[in-house]
Amino acid sequence: MPKVTQGHLDARRQQIVDAARVRFASHGFARTSMADLVAASGLSTGAIYRDFSSKDEIVTAICEQSSGEVFPTELTAESVHGMLERIRSRAREHDHARLVAQIYAEAALAPPLAAIVDRQFAELRSTVASLLCDRTDDDAARIAEGFVAVCVGYSQQLAVRGDLDPSPFATALMAILEH
Amino acid sequence: MPKVTQGHLDARRQQIVDAARVRFASHGFARTSMADLVAASGLSTGAIYRDFSSKDEIVTAICEQSSGEVFPTELTAESVHGMLERIRSRAREHDHARLVAQIYAEAALAPPLAAIVDRQFAELRSTVASLLCDRTDDDAARIAEGFVAVCVGYSQQLAVRGDLDPSPFATALMAILEH
Repeated sequence: MPKVTQGHLDARRQQIVDAARVRFASHGFARTSMADLVAASGLSTGAIYRDFSSKDEIVTAICEQSSGEVFPTELTAESVHGMLERIRSRAREHDHARLVAQIYAEAALAPPLAAIVDRQFAELRSTVASLLCDRTDDDAARIAEGFVAVCVGYSQQLAVRGDLDPSPFATALMAILEH
Repeated sequence: MPKVTQGHLDARRQQIVDAARVRFASHGFARTSMADLVAASGLSTGAIYRDFSSKDEIVTAICEQSSGEVFPTELTAESVHGMLERIRSRAREHDHARLVAQIYAEAALAPPLAAIVDRQFAELRSTVASLLCDRTDDDAARIAEGFVAVCVGYSQQLAVRGDLDPSPFATALMAILEH
């Protein structure tokens, strides 16, 4: 067998994940087969099945890669607005909001995927709570719930309504943080 | 032909819509065929096609019926908490949050459905804004955006995470209203 470098393997895996994101965002999961993903990735069936035994495994890889990319690093008005602008950019440039809508809908039907998405919500809540050093743990947890709800509500509406100015959502986040 | 009363026609139509809600919430749209809806409703194929020419028309009927049911009538802490409790009850008793997740995902892919969902978001924003009499129109519109985002974020998380105490979300809504 020819030697295959780790870099080559990683690149191939990424090629599959990237093709799957595009396809899931435009068609949803149920209307996408492994054969569609083979066609979309430009790789062979064998190449895909070496990395992923099922569509569910590709969805899991997509979810795991998405995590943390837009998390805030501080909770100033500027930083919060910047976070929403990153969510907006990913929606416009990578169709990410439509992909996320498909992921939530599938997670609502599939407990293993729900567990992954649930963990991501918890990670974002925990990131937000950790930045609220002057609050009690209970207050920080409560505020983080509201914070994540606005982010989810913004992203879902980008998927359905199309591009939206993040300003009113940023103001809502600051209201929740400052309450 | 035998005489059929309007009441009977309405009841049959409702029987189809109710069966479709259950099926869509548990399987999503793409995995549900008109044949599945015939089986789930207990009616004949002919009976269903007399009322609805396609799955999309049934989805539209579901969306149109859902509108307004949980809208707030005033914006006190008690009323806002009550609204979230109604969203929670509908999720627990009628699997409504999972259904809504399927509707958003489908709306993200299908512009005619997106237009219906978009109109429902606008109606809720407009209801909220109309209750903010002491605010300027711009402020009321901005607050209403944040308000709807929390409701959407709460509902989506009920679909993915399961039952959730509405209290932190109610506090977030009050923070947005009072900011």
